[in-house]
Amino acid sequence: MAIDAIIPFKPKNPKTRLSCILEQEEREAFARAMLSDVLAAVRAAGCAPTLLSTGPFEHPDAAVVEDPAGLNESLNRVLAAAHNPVLIIMADLPLATPEAVARMVGTDASMAIAPGLGGGTNAIFVKEPSRYHVDYYGASFCKHMAIAAEAGLSCEVTDSFRLHTDVDEKEDLVEVLIHGQGSAACRCLESLGFALSIERGRVGVERRTHKETL
Amino acid sequence: MAIDAIIPFKPKNPKTRLSCILEQEEREAFARAMLSDVLAAVRAAGCAPTLLSTGPFEHPDAAVVEDPAGLNESLNRVLAAAHNPVLIIMADLPLATPEAVARMVGTDASMAIAPGLGGGTNAIFVKEPSRYHVDYYGASFCKHMAIAAEAGLSCEVTDSFRLHTDVDEKEDLVEVLIHGQGSAACRCLESLGFALSIERGRVGVERRTHKETL
Repeated sequence: MAIDAIIPFKPKNPKTRLSCILEQEEREAFARAMLSDVLAAVRAAGCAPTLLSTGPFEHPDAAVVEDPAGLNESLNRVLAAAHNPVLIIMADLPLATPEAVARMVGTDASMAIAPGLGGGTNAIFVKEPSRYHVDYYGASFCKHMAIAAEAGLSCEVTDSFRLHTDVDEKEDLVEVLIHGQGSAACRCLESLGFALSIERGRVGVERRTHKETL
Repeated sequence: MAIDAIIPFKPKNPKTRLSCILEQEEREAFARAMLSDVLAAVRAAGCAPTLLSTGPFEHPDAAVVEDPAGLNESLNRVLAAAHNPVLIIMADLPLATPEAVARMVGTDASMAIAPGLGGGTNAIFVKEPSRYHVDYYGASFCKHMAIAAEAGLSCEVTDSFRLHTDVDEKEDLVEVLIHGQGSAACRCLESLGFALSIERGRVGVERRTHKETL
């Protein structure tokens, strides 16, 4: 059966934790670049993507549904109305590969969850979406596992660092430059002057145009 | 062919970046607990473990070779002398599962590398160890990929957050408490009074016996 991929997206002033190193327009461009990496992975894994956008946005490669409601409210509306299996995947996973997504949606269980760092949830795949609801923020991974158990849905934890790596902070840019070679997000960072730096054995990023080490 | 798993281990005063929350004896007990999780995963995946210890140490479930030399020097001595395929895996990966290790050593490529956060290398599997050498510290993942290319060895990047999660800092304990349920490392932390805490939507750990939130 066809799989619908739902990708929440915030086109305006996203990724504010990167404000220390990226201007608003740069953050918006970087968010669009990461989105295009996620879209490419999801499409290559055979899913049909729809963007769930907090505001007006158009994209040549995906349907866009605009919903200014909160993340949980808008996603739970989608889940309640869905007929096909649904993959919810965050837009800030530029290391996502078709293989990682395919492994996730190929689970034998009723659903799969790809955790993020610090108890977060980066992707959820559910074969019968009307039986599930989401509860993001805080230790959402634990909440999502508990909701699966309450609903009687078997759940696999997807073991992928590529889906585990969400990009929120400047240290996360290191992961994009190392493991995202060739991705739109990596090209975007390089065009903005970012490169790896190694000082006293620690790997970081520096922005060459600004002549400062972050 | 049998696979030898080499696990570097520092029995005395390990994990000094956890000094802020764990006394030396506690860090030594925690390091041994993480080691036993790695040993269990490695054994269940069909590998024969040998500990490469920086000092005197005995373990009921593994051979121990003592070598006070640096990590690179001692590992490269092992690789040069090895006849079987070798898995080098760090001792601070308590989320490692038999499935993750089996996926890694089951690669079709000549070798596989499991990266750690920030450009590190958490595990290396090489079918012909005498053709390879290691170069840890700094952006070792990039160095290890380059060494593979120079040696003409095809190399898969193992996509596993369980092998990606090395435990060095107090924030890493969150991962153990969330994703390591049932592991020796998790039981060790729980016996020391650690539990998850959620404040203002952020997940952290607190040590109950000390009545402080970290």
